[in-house]
Amino acid sequence: MEKILLEYRNLINKELEKNIAPEKPEILFEAMRYSVFAGGKRARPLFMMAVCDSLGGNIKQCLPFAAAIEMIHTYSLIHDDLPAMDNDDYRRGKLTNHKVYGEAMAILAGDALLNRAFEIIAEECCNNLNIGNMYAFRYLTVAAGACGMIGGQAADILSEGQDIDMREILFIHKKKTSALFCAALNMGAALAGAGIDKIKRITALGEKIGLAFQIRDDILDITSTQEILGKPVNSDMRNKKNTYVSLFGMEKTNGDYKILSAQIYSEIKNIFGDNNILYYLVSKILDRDK
Amino acid sequence: MEKILLEYRNLINKELEKNIAPEKPEILFEAMRYSVFAGGKRARPLFMMAVCDSLGGNIKQCLPFAAAIEMIHTYSLIHDDLPAMDNDDYRRGKLTNHKVYGEAMAILAGDALLNRAFEIIAEECCNNLNIGNMYAFRYLTVAAGACGMIGGQAADILSEGQDIDMREILFIHKKKTSALFCAALNMGAALAGAGIDKIKRITALGEKIGLAFQIRDDILDITSTQEILGKPVNSDMRNKKNTYVSLFGMEKTNGDYKILSAQIYSEIKNIFGDNNILYYLVSKILDRDK
Repeated sequence: MEKILLEYRNLINKELEKNIAPEKPEILFEAMRYSVFAGGKRARPLFMMAVCDSLGGNIKQCLPFAAAIEMIHTYSLIHDDLPAMDNDDYRRGKLTNHKVYGEAMAILAGDALLNRAFEIIAEECCNNLNIGNMYAFRYLTVAAGACGMIGGQAADILSEGQDIDMREILFIHKKKTSALFCAALNMGAALAGAGIDKIKRITALGEKIGLAFQIRDDILDITSTQEILGKPVNSDMRNKKNTYVSLFGMEKTNGDYKILSAQIYSEIKNIFGDNNILYYLVSKILDRDK
Repeated sequence: MEKILLEYRNLINKELEKNIAPEKPEILFEAMRYSVFAGGKRARPLFMMAVCDSLGGNIKQCLPFAAAIEMIHTYSLIHDDLPAMDNDDYRRGKLTNHKVYGEAMAILAGDALLNRAFEIIAEECCNNLNIGNMYAFRYLTVAAGACGMIGGQAADILSEGQDIDMREILFIHKKKTSALFCAALNMGAALAGAGIDKIKRITALGEKIGLAFQIRDDILDITSTQEILGKPVNSDMRNKKNTYVSLFGMEKTNGDYKILSAQIYSEIKNIFGDNNILYYLVSKILDRDK
């Protein structure tokens, strides 16, 4: 299984490399490449390919969309790190984009990555006019937008320093993190030609995986170290961020996390059968220590 | 002719209204709507529809793309006005987005408008799977991206306070302004089902119109007043921007502008025949005083 994931990751990195080859203006492309090749886990594209593969689809069809979703994830990190937003200096053990290239170029590099994601998809759609591509395109746009990831980031920023309840925190998690995970899973399913009933079940699964991923992030922000994590720990507390942990404490969070994980594993077996690559990938992501 | 343009503009505004109806988080949508409905000329969508109409296409097919290109234009203004970029306080006689909603929300509102443009297109492509839609989508992505508008803005920022030559200034104009104008024209042609030879001629025309539009902007920045323009004049000089005027002086700029305009009018007649809506629209845009 590990070998398959390595092969996926190689394909994703080659596709990214192909689609942001340096051009003029050089500094803009350098800034885009700096963050895309800063050691990301490629979790979202890996999920997309694992679902497509587990449903018997051809993973090569995922590649343009895999590169696109990774670029969208990367642009969101660049913009989130800006002084006007979370004001973070480090990300994945390296200086954040604006710390290296300045704020103006970081904003533009983010914009350019978001736009480039759709350039890649447009080219693919012109070359292969099929409904699976259209639905994959649509899932991505909705998940990344004002009613998805961007809306979650806005709600998160607006809630800083405020007392918010469980419903609001779940709203933020669902939009900010789960939306793009769900999209990754749904896109893999659409590209494998899955029907609407299967996609509905996969959407529900994706929401749970996204929530688990975010809770794991929040736990690690407290229990890990800067050396392992590659970014300062306790940043949520410093920024007065509302997280699952800050709201419910570590004990309940750990307990809920275990229940959620068990549900996820069971649902994956139900949908995809035993011994599939998605199961293996999820176990790696949920048990990660960075 | 004026009545036709009014009808176009009404259709564009309705399409925009439909596609950014207020949702949660309210402030994000308010910020998006603030700039989209701040009195823009709708020049790019009007060009798209005028070309489609002049080629015998159905302008209704343009509407999702018309809303999309206007949103992309609007997001670029929001981000360009940010303190880290051009640092402008006024735009179209109103406070700029970040002056009203703060920097974080202005960055997110811009991101959300760029993303929403592609949400609209994705929905349209799912509903109407045809090659004209795909090409219109592709023209837009390339023109708006790192090798188009964003690249032009990056080059513009990098050139501030530097001595640059005519070639470089034309590169910036071509990318920053012409690219999106060209795309508007090409999209209208693709949506009307035009062939590749016609589109090539329209691309060349679009580049000229875009350049003329930008030169007119630079002239008005010097010769107009804040009352008429709705934003401070002489901002290029203050920001040490390289413009056609700063490089060649007002006399040569005016002369070149006249020659360029004459070429544009003649080429429109050649491609689209006499007495068409595009000719009328171009004359209004090129002779504008704000």
